[in-house]
Amino acid sequence: MRALLEKIAAEGEVVAGGVLKVDRFLNHQVDPHLMKRIGEEFADQFRGERPTKVLTLESSGISPALMTAYELGVPLVVARKRRPLTMTGEVYRAEVYSFTKQEANEIVVSRSLLDGFDRVLIIDDFLANGQAALGMVEVVRQAGAAVVGIGIVIEKAFQDGGRLLRSRGFRVVSLARIASLADGVIRFHEEVMNG
Amino acid sequence: MRALLEKIAAEGEVVAGGVLKVDRFLNHQVDPHLMKRIGEEFADQFRGERPTKVLTLESSGISPALMTAYELGVPLVVARKRRPLTMTGEVYRAEVYSFTKQEANEIVVSRSLLDGFDRVLIIDDFLANGQAALGMVEVVRQAGAAVVGIGIVIEKAFQDGGRLLRSRGFRVVSLARIASLADGVIRFHEEVMNG
Repeated sequence: MRALLEKIAAEGEVVAGGVLKVDRFLNHQVDPHLMKRIGEEFADQFRGERPTKVLTLESSGISPALMTAYELGVPLVVARKRRPLTMTGEVYRAEVYSFTKQEANEIVVSRSLLDGFDRVLIIDDFLANGQAALGMVEVVRQAGAAVVGIGIVIEKAFQDGGRLLRSRGFRVVSLARIASLADGVIRFHEEVMNG
Repeated sequence: MRALLEKIAAEGEVVAGGVLKVDRFLNHQVDPHLMKRIGEEFADQFRGERPTKVLTLESSGISPALMTAYELGVPLVVARKRRPLTMTGEVYRAEVYSFTKQEANEIVVSRSLLDGFDRVLIIDDFLANGQAALGMVEVVRQAGAAVVGIGIVIEKAFQDGGRLLRSRGFRVVSLARIASLADGVIRFHEEVMNG
């Protein structure tokens, strides 16, 4: 998605440890019009799969996922990292291991929000090693629902997540694929492919 | 806002401890079309104040705040409850005390995202004792920016937050005001006012 690639090139920043910082438009500060375009793009890509729900993980996934759900005309379900006081009923739960923080966290979704008739589109802001997406896939599996696709705003194509998810048969659509952040330079997959 | 009051009456639930659970349309599951209408309403109410940024707190504030920022055509800034690894520069910070969890948490915003020229509209999903809103006000104050208004989706009018903020001169617009949750019954301010 050209507008996104241009935004990453112009405002993305590689910080210590090879982390891509996009907090001027995707997570800490959010560009609502870019999110709208991202939502339209995901909706166009996945409308044919007839999703009944969009699922994301708090909190950085919410903005692109909300706009996608809006375009598709379906509810958004936000998986929680901490079980809030108001979540009183039965839940689906999955473990998500964070390599950056080196800790395992549980994600939870109320059982009342997903069932065996749901066709779930998973949306997240980043795909690196795929642990968050796999946690959401597990939640959908527990509900007996189907994953109809996985939409990712920025895929770190030099990490394993994309391969892992695609090898399991999931259709993964990434709007920007980063081939490398080596030497603090952001190189897109498309650039590398074209030499 | 009538559509919101109807949704709260139909799908809101009072759980143990007098907590209002609205997780079928506002936070755990989110109704994107209702969020769009909420965003339009806040934009209409505050457009005249010429806000340059919308500020909210992760994660339940993001959905209504994103739609408001979209309608106003300004960026959304999401105050963080935990400082992420990518937040490397200088920050504004404030303490927010949670009466329900009985713990103090810090909220942080990167200094690069707010400055003395900003006119900030604060949006949040709930207003109870006002601690979260006051934390955001403090962040704006540190930036030397102005708070042009506070938009709240659901105000618990039987708690002190609304009075506290209004007594400090802030214009607070709440789309639904709950007068009481006693005996597990949701009573709106408007109903109580009309007898």
